[in-house]
Amino acid sequence: MLEAIRLSENNVRNGGGPFGAVIAKDGEIVATGVNRVTSDCDPTAHAEVNAIRAACARLGTFDLSGCELYSSCEPCPMCLGAIYWAHLDKLYYGNDKKDAAGIGFDDAFIYRELDLKPEDRALKSERLLPDKAIEAFRQWADKADKVEY
Amino acid sequence: MLEAIRLSENNVRNGGGPFGAVIAKDGEIVATGVNRVTSDCDPTAHAEVNAIRAACARLGTFDLSGCELYSSCEPCPMCLGAIYWAHLDKLYYGNDKKDAAGIGFDDAFIYRELDLKPEDRALKSERLLPDKAIEAFRQWADKADKVEY
Repeated sequence: MLEAIRLSENNVRNGGGPFGAVIAKDGEIVATGVNRVTSDCDPTAHAEVNAIRAACARLGTFDLSGCELYSSCEPCPMCLGAIYWAHLDKLYYGNDKKDAAGIGFDDAFIYRELDLKPEDRALKSERLLPDKAIEAFRQWADKADKVEY
Repeated sequence: MLEAIRLSENNVRNGGGPFGAVIAKDGEIVATGVNRVTSDCDPTAHAEVNAIRAACARLGTFDLSGCELYSSCEPCPMCLGAIYWAHLDKLYYGNDKKDAAGIGFDDAFIYRELDLKPEDRALKSERLLPDKAIEAFRQWADKADKVEY
């Protein structure tokens, strides 16, 4: 956690957002990440997502079971979703989403939005062509040699 | 939407998950994405995230205001979070999260987890060193020349 915090402070000095993350396995650091949204022109380049991608690249897997994530801040819904998809064993965090809201980040707003029904969200959404879209799901269900994740 | 669906079917044939996404601006396609979790060893490489990354790279921005996303399936919490961070104007989707659960994807499970208090989630989490972690947030708040996002 001290390393994740050090990375978060370093990243402010480097012009990035105040977030750092570390992935560890068996007590050793596997990969780190910092927020690079503005420097990489990538709104998904949060510290946790970058750490997950780096750890997967290093370990050659899309499944981080057996690893733990240390994040300088409680993950936003995007990063928390990524943590579930990566099957990380445990999450440690320093600041929480209220602290993030206090310095102008949208985490708490996005958590509230996800709690709403789609029709009540600020993000407008509309379902189209479900009868055609389902065909790919049927093909997936029928595929014998698929790699599940 | 027809293009997003075409991409989703194509991706099953190519060994990937049954998901495709398209980002459009002013009626023109800006970028597309398909699910590459297993082929790229990247659990964050969902169709919507890949389309957002590609659109941002093409337009040279981390802000996709003015763009719309067409996804062959209702986004999971990770992708929905990414859509908020990218400031997309509107979301169109084909299959929904129940359809995704029906063929074995965790979307509905992750939505339920996010609704729970951290202590009730399957993912174990623990807060550490908040007094040290807050220092990076103070530095960010005090920084005059920061690029906000």
